[in-house]
Amino acid sequence: MDKQKAVILLSGGLDSATCLAIAQSEGYDVYGVTFDYGQRHNIELDAAKRIADRAGIPLLTIRFDMRLWGGSALTSDEINVPHGEGGDHETAPVTYVPARNLIFLSFGVSYAETLGAKDIFIGVNSMDYSGYPDCRDAFVKAFQQTATLGTKAIDENWQFNIHAPLQYMKKSEIITRGMELGVDYSMTHSCYSPDPDGFPCEECDSCTLRIRAFAELGMRDPALRKR
Amino acid sequence: MDKQKAVILLSGGLDSATCLAIAQSEGYDVYGVTFDYGQRHNIELDAAKRIADRAGIPLLTIRFDMRLWGGSALTSDEINVPHGEGGDHETAPVTYVPARNLIFLSFGVSYAETLGAKDIFIGVNSMDYSGYPDCRDAFVKAFQQTATLGTKAIDENWQFNIHAPLQYMKKSEIITRGMELGVDYSMTHSCYSPDPDGFPCEECDSCTLRIRAFAELGMRDPALRKR
Repeated sequence: MDKQKAVILLSGGLDSATCLAIAQSEGYDVYGVTFDYGQRHNIELDAAKRIADRAGIPLLTIRFDMRLWGGSALTSDEINVPHGEGGDHETAPVTYVPARNLIFLSFGVSYAETLGAKDIFIGVNSMDYSGYPDCRDAFVKAFQQTATLGTKAIDENWQFNIHAPLQYMKKSEIITRGMELGVDYSMTHSCYSPDPDGFPCEECDSCTLRIRAFAELGMRDPALRKR
Repeated sequence: MDKQKAVILLSGGLDSATCLAIAQSEGYDVYGVTFDYGQRHNIELDAAKRIADRAGIPLLTIRFDMRLWGGSALTSDEINVPHGEGGDHETAPVTYVPARNLIFLSFGVSYAETLGAKDIFIGVNSMDYSGYPDCRDAFVKAFQQTATLGTKAIDENWQFNIHAPLQYMKKSEIITRGMELGVDYSMTHSCYSPDPDGFPCEECDSCTLRIRAFAELGMRDPALRKR
């Protein structure tokens, strides 16, 4: 029997790379999709491509420009990425991009429907990113229902499954799981404001979270510049 | 007091042009958004621009290419647009684009969040397009809830309102309402496969519906080629 197809949203970061390994470990025939949405740098797109290649999956790149309407430090030159703010937010930080996961998941559903896939994986996590409404379980569950109602699924009597296996894992648990599955974290890129050579700044929220999690495991983040 | 802002999804067609007029008649300060998504022709984008200009509203054009993953006669060169099939479908026709309105509405939400708008207008209609799951009321209602959960709305304790004022109107009722509001239907474009001069084919589902509705009102569709 053919393996069931699944779509995964790949950002090039640590979480989605782990999520991909989990999807493959569950036996899915995985199709990647990544987004060139006007983020400040293309390093994460290169990382997504490397990760997809290593996992042996195809990668669809969808391009659109969220800078046209702005609203986030990740897409606007007028808002600075904060440094050393730590990872705990109760309200959306300036790196929040309005409705980004809603848009990404919607494209994922369209691609999945065309492929004949019912399963979509997304590496969202509400432990580290509680300030991002579009990373929370309530959103993911509601989206799953909306996607089913808005596609052929509803007429054909099946439903989309949005898998968010990292939802309640701490960063160090995610890394541990990924290492068991052979993820090469040196290939991943999570930094919001990399240096001119493409290495992580080691100071932004995203860097701080990773570095701390690897340290908890007695390791140095393998994506950092060699010393 | 400043007028409340609203976002409208404009396709250049008859329905969204009417929906825009309704939004303005309700007193909203309307911001248009249209999509260049790899549809076969740009005539509808030109129509959207004309309609926005005439209504005196700004128009944001968001570009992405759904042909990359295909799946519809409207975006694929390999699937033909059917002629004279009539407007009544119980399952999705080949002109259905997977999750199109899910993607469009998601961009609308992102734009609205950046603008500080809570209201989004979409000219979907489930009388004529019952075969399109993403035009139905159940989908629109579920989307509204998902959008609220996935944005700052949930933390700020407000909700998005997705307005679909044409949902239960017949095409002839839509036209009657639009004419009361001064919509110039000669500017609108609805045809799936226009002729080389950009005039409607008069044979596709979309043309057939319009022509019939104007005929019921004792009129000739003003967008047709002059005879």
